[in-house]
Amino acid sequence: SSFEYVKKFEHDDSLLPNTWIVIRLDGKCFHKFADDHNFTKPNDLRALKLMNYAAYTVLKEYSDILLSFGQSDEYSFVLRKDSCLYKRRSAKLLTTINSKFSSSYVFYWNKFFEHLPLKYPPCFDGRIVLYPCDENLIDYMKWRQADVHINNLYNTTFWTLILKGQLTPVQAEKRLSGTVSADKNEILFQEFNMNYNNEPEIFKRGTILLRKSLLHNKVNKSIIVDVHDDMLKDKFWKENIYILSVKKSKQNLMYKGPTTEIIEDQLSKYENHLEA
Amino acid sequence: SSFEYVKKFEHDDSLLPNTWIVIRLDGKCFHKFADDHNFTKPNDLRALKLMNYAAYTVLKEYSDILLSFGQSDEYSFVLRKDSCLYKRRSAKLLTTINSKFSSSYVFYWNKFFEHLPLKYPPCFDGRIVLYPCDENLIDYMKWRQADVHINNLYNTTFWTLILKGQLTPVQAEKRLSGTVSADKNEILFQEFNMNYNNEPEIFKRGTILLRKSLLHNKVNKSIIVDVHDDMLKDKFWKENIYILSVKKSKQNLMYKGPTTEIIEDQLSKYENHLEA
Amino acid sequence: SSFEYVKKFEHDDSLLPNTWIVIRLDGKCFHKFADDHNFTKPNDLRALKLMNYAAYTVLKEYSDILLSFGQSDEYSFVLRKDSCLYKRRSAKLLTTINSKFSSSYVFYWNKFFEHLPLKYPPCFDGRIVLYPCDENLIDYMKWRQADVHINNLYNTTFWTLILKGQLTPVQAEKRLSGTVSADKNEILFQEFNMNYNNEPEIFKRGTILLRKSLLHNKVNKSIIVDVHDDMLKDKFWKENIYILSVKKSKQNLMYKGPTTEIIEDQLSKYENHLEA
Amino acid sequence: SSFEYVKKFEHDDSLLPNTWIVIRLDGKCFHKFADDHNFTKPNDLRALKLMNYAAYTVLKEYSDILLSFGQSDEYSFVLRKDSCLYKRRSAKLLTTINSKFSSSYVFYWNKFFEHLPLKYPPCFDGRIVLYPCDENLIDYMKWRQADVHINNLYNTTFWTLILKGQLTPVQAEKRLSGTVSADKNEILFQEFNMNYNNEPEIFKRGTILLRKSLLHNKVNKSIIVDVHDDMLKDKFWKENIYILSVKKSKQNLMYKGPTTEIIEDQLSKYENHLEA
Ligand SMILES: Nc1nc2c(ncn2[C@H]2C[C@H](O)[C@@H](COP(=O)(O)OP(=O)(O)OP(=O)(O)O)O2)c(=O)[nH]1
Ligand SMILES: Nc1nc2c(ncn2[C@H]2C[C@H](O)[C@@H](COP(=O)(O)OP(=O)(O)OP(=O)(O)O)O2)c(=O)[nH]1
Ligand SMILES: Nc1nc2c(ncn2[C@H]2C[C@H](O)[C@@H](COP(=O)(O)OP(=O)(O)OP(=O)(O)O)O2)c(=O)[nH]1
Ligand SMILES: Nc1nc2c(ncn2[C@H]2C[C@H](O)[C@@H](COP(=O)(O)OP(=O)(O)OP(=O)(O)O)O2)c(=O)[nH]1
Ligand SMILES: O=P(O)(O)OP(=O)(O)OP(=O)(O)O
Ligand SMILES: O=P(O)(O)OP(=O)(O)OP(=O)(O)O
Ligand SMILES: O=P(O)(O)OP(=O)(O)OP(=O)(O)O
Ligand SMILES: O=P(O)(O)OP(=O)(O)OP(=O)(O)O
Ligand SMILES: [Mg+2]
Ligand SMILES: [Mg+2]
Ligand SMILES: [Mg+2]
Ligand SMILES: [Mg+2]
Ligand SMILES: [Mg+2]
Ligand SMILES: [Mg+2]
Ligand SMILES: [Mg+2]
Ligand SMILES: [Mg+2]
Ligand SMILES: [Mg+2]
Ligand SMILES: [Mg+2]
Ligand SMILES: [Mg+2]
Ligand SMILES: [Mg+2]
Repeated sequence: SSFEYVKKFEHDDSLLPNTWIVIRLDGKCFHKFADDHNFTKPNDLRALKLMNYAAYTVLKEYSDILLSFGQSDEYSFVLRKDSCLYKRRSAKLLTTINSKFSSSYVFYWNKFFEHLPLKYPPCFDGRIVLYPCDENLIDYMKWRQADVHINNLYNTTFWTLILKGQLTPVQAEKRLSGTVSADKNEILFQEFNMNYNNEPEIFKRGTILLRKSLLHNKVNKSIIVDVHDDMLKDKFWKENIYILSVKKSKQNLMYKGPTTEIIEDQLSKYENHLEA
Repeated sequence: SSFEYVKKFEHDDSLLPNTWIVIRLDGKCFHKFADDHNFTKPNDLRALKLMNYAAYTVLKEYSDILLSFGQSDEYSFVLRKDSCLYKRRSAKLLTTINSKFSSSYVFYWNKFFEHLPLKYPPCFDGRIVLYPCDENLIDYMKWRQADVHINNLYNTTFWTLILKGQLTPVQAEKRLSGTVSADKNEILFQEFNMNYNNEPEIFKRGTILLRKSLLHNKVNKSIIVDVHDDMLKDKFWKENIYILSVKKSKQNLMYKGPTTEIIEDQLSKYENHLEA
Repeated sequence: SSFEYVKKFEHDDSLLPNTWIVIRLDGKCFHKFADDHNFTKPNDLRALKLMNYAAYTVLKEYSDILLSFGQSDEYSFVLRKDSCLYKRRSAKLLTTINSKFSSSYVFYWNKFFEHLPLKYPPCFDGRIVLYPCDENLIDYMKWRQADVHINNLYNTTFWTLILKGQLTPVQAEKRLSGTVSADKNEILFQEFNMNYNNEPEIFKRGTILLRKSLLHNKVNKSIIVDVHDDMLKDKFWKENIYILSVKKSKQNLMYKGPTTEIIEDQLSKYENHLEA
Repeated sequence: SSFEYVKKFEHDDSLLPNTWIVIRLDGKCFHKFADDHNFTKPNDLRALKLMNYAAYTVLKEYSDILLSFGQSDEYSFVLRKDSCLYKRRSAKLLTTINSKFSSSYVFYWNKFFEHLPLKYPPCFDGRIVLYPCDENLIDYMKWRQADVHINNLYNTTFWTLILKGQLTPVQAEKRLSGTVSADKNEILFQEFNMNYNNEPEIFKRGTILLRKSLLHNKVNKSIIVDVHDDMLKDKFWKENIYILSVKKSKQNLMYKGPTTEIIEDQLSKYENHLEA
């Protein structure tokens, strides 16, 4: 048609090759969404599990995602630096991953919030950031996880002061003003006999999704696992150095950890396939 | 933290000012999604209504969207050219609108597909395109609507040949090869006594969502209306010239058409607000 | 060769279609360059003529440049909004025009600074800016010319206070601090019997280069003319409305003004062509 | 002024951090420029020296350029990957370096083409390309140098066939059609008793400019040297690994080679400084 010229106004947004692609999604005004659905403070396990499950559906669909990290209302996805998915078109990558995550979040709501109906559809913003070298990418992951630690320690102390300590939010904020990590740990221990270290790892560290192998029915299966390792420690990156490798013949490390719901979900699907 | 430097790798993707912003979403592999959910061919009214409703929730949230057009598995949103929403940051605009549409699509599925469960969460890609002048924008809308006409006439004839004419898809394709619009109209009329002009307008023209005023309980309310006008005719643009106006004091035209479900939805919400 | 993959790291920087393309060049550290070459203060006619001549060589080469404006150490070039020069590749347009201007500036130095050798090669930065509509483009031209007026009135008064009024720069700056245009005009008139309006137009208004027609040897020739009109007045844009027109068959207005050196330069070249 | 809003149409073109920045300039229609100035075929030493000198003036001015390579009518400049020059604004970097090169080329023409006047100012296009890792950057340099080798062997054989072998260009092209490097070497040797390996290195390999140290008057001076090493060999990169290092305290390697005109130019300027 004579109107087709308008397609020429689309622009080429191909990303620089050989660069790590990070897509980070973040819930819009999630504070309100959390309040409207009476999320437990400061961490709601059902909400975190739903975030993880939505991210897991994204990893299932896009094999170029090597690693993923989520906390609070955000999730980051790392695509291999030699990825040619959608010819590295930025909007294509960003929107399909964001849309998949968003629609999964609503689709699986009831799986985690059994008796709490979703009142309205939430929405997540997204952005793509490129990291040229492994060090920058690793620092990005550490940055996001350091953010959990800082926030969770504050929030845990804050809400404990309010819910157990009977302080008002204003008083709690004042109490915490000027404190450092050690002080907060001290408050929790001295005043509430709480050892912050005993907090669930998912609260303290967020969740990492990565691909590993598992021996299942005598066969090595590639699965997606959810773990709560400390990425700020070198140990994680030494053990998992293969994640960032782009060799074709690379093999996933063997998984040695508990069978989580996400892992069970995959094993049972393998079972179903066998039966079918 | 010492990792915060990674935030500097984010880039400024602000859009050129004073330019029409068009966001177009399109279902990914929707052919398969439609088959998996047994959509009526070639048009499934439930599916189209759900698309319209999801788009309507987007227009409710973002007042800078002046005009919207949907057909098949796509929806286009036009933001006013002087919009400063999210400081015209491209990824922010694109992802929040795409995410809202995607999560709404899943959230309202049951409202339109009452007895058909959603099997898995669909996803929609998205892109932003800028149009510098009104003429380019109008041609964009015409381009999308011309696409409906061409596709729908083909699909209607194709599926009629198959479902009523007992042809196989291969035979139907062959039959239609080399035909022009007049031929297809002829096939429908001569062989199946069908007048293509009598097809529902939503099938022939897609759906336009725009903001108009309605006198309701003696008060002028601003509402979002869904219509199926022919944008390829000058008449539409003359009547609706105000849509593209960016004057602060502009007024919406009065709506003079049937009360659709989307309009009823807004009127009843106004009622509820009065009662509450 | 196996290294050719590196070419894929180049990116597509095509500019949005149907948008005015403005390229603005500005001398780097030209204050120092002007001092090192003892430019007359505040305006050096030789320097301004050289800037104009360098810009003229650029207009001769690129017919897609419809309009050009220069002042001080800067020059702006306006390419037609439907230009497909270099397929609207941004770096290609910007660098070839900047390079041509820069090399011409050095090449023609002696033509204007006859007895003053160029001490070192100057350099000019450059940028491309897009303007979606005619109004934005016209406002851009007005912005640049308003800048001349403000600066020149200040500079003229400043240097007069110093060179004729025997003030030091610090004293002159203090004297002018807080003054408005009327005050500066007053100082020039009252204290130095200077009527600012009588300053040469090239100093007050900068230089506009545009294409017009001239009857020469009974034939209409298309030439580039240098004028010093006031673009802040509607009169200029009404008379020259054709400049922004993109019609193929458009005709340049007839030129009715003095024969400048730049015009003479073209007429004599036409003569040479006839003889040869 | 009320027109200042037009400045907001400028866009942020900051380059991704921690990435090698390559700026490549290339003469526009240099084939014609070379013919118009009777450049020796296939290599004109005066022209190549002028290119090198213009590039040298650019390296003198911008200390963030670590390495530079030129051949034929092109020059590439590599900026350190942690460069913050002009806050990594793409157009600023590209245009100032291109303009400096272009104006220097004209300014120093007479230094190399003593009795041949420059007929008109040449111009050079330019582009910026980012390379995320050292390997990509090294491959870029190898790509440009492999290009010299391929082209020079062809051109040398081609023009020898014409100038010494009395072939026409068409005959020479035909003769070389389908030949590989070994064949061309053979032609030169067998038919013209020419050993291609004995061709001047500047013709076979182009020119590399880098920063080294030289002991001069008992003091270590940092200088820019022009060499013709083979970057396709690992030897070059092993010796010069420091070039790509971004350590603050890095030291340039000591230079051990002949005193070229470019080196002499710097030593005499050091002398002049001492005397002054
Ligand atoms: N109670 C509760 N709230 C949560 C939980 N996870 C996230 N949230 C809420 C509280 C946090 O302030 C908020 C996420 O922080 P953000 O900085 O992303 O702010 P928010 O989403 O409100 O605004 P935004 O649109 O992203 O600028 O979401 C949770 O597990 N429990
Ligand atoms: N049966 C049926 N199918 C529909 C309806 N609306 C859309 N579809 C399907 C059939 C169309 O070929 C498809 C949309 O066309 P597209 O060109 O967007 O292709 P598709 O989404 O399959 O692939 P894509 O990922 O967008 O490249 O969606 C409908 O109302 N009924
Ligand atoms: N004496 C004299 N100086 C001039 C003339 N034209 C330009 N200049 C000098 C004085 C101005 O301050 C300077 C241009 O102003 P800019 O704002 O572009 O500053 P400058 O080029 O020094 O720095 P920049 O690298 O552009 O940030 O050039 C002239 O005709 N006579
Ligand atoms: N005779 C001669 N010609 C040279 C020399 N260096 C460069 N040239 C000419 C011949 C080459 O074909 C030309 C450079 O090749 P390019 O591929 O850059 O082509 P050209 O600049 O003509 O076109 P372009 O505007 O870059 O697409 O410059 C030289 O030393 N001697
Ligand atoms: O945490 P971020 O990166 O989302 O930072 P922000 O302060 O929310 O800013 P924005 O989302 O607008 O980039
Ligand atoms: O109709 P479009 O614009 O989506 O075109 P396409 O052929 O699907 O291409 P893509 O979605 O990859 O731009
Ligand atoms: O007058 P401009 O636009 O050159 O503005 P500036 O203050 O010189 O800034 P820059 O040249 O760095 O954009
Ligand atoms: O050698 P290049 O990169 O300049 O390639 P080209 O074929 O001249 O193309 P262009 O200069 O238009 O990118
Ligand atoms: Mg945010
Ligand atoms: Mg949020
Ligand atoms: Mg958040
Ligand atoms: Mg598509
Ligand atoms: Mg689709
Ligand atoms: Mg579609
Ligand atoms: Mg500037
Ligand atoms: Mg300047
Ligand atoms: Mg200036
Ligand atoms: Mg080229
Ligand atoms: Mg060239
Ligand atoms: Mg070349």
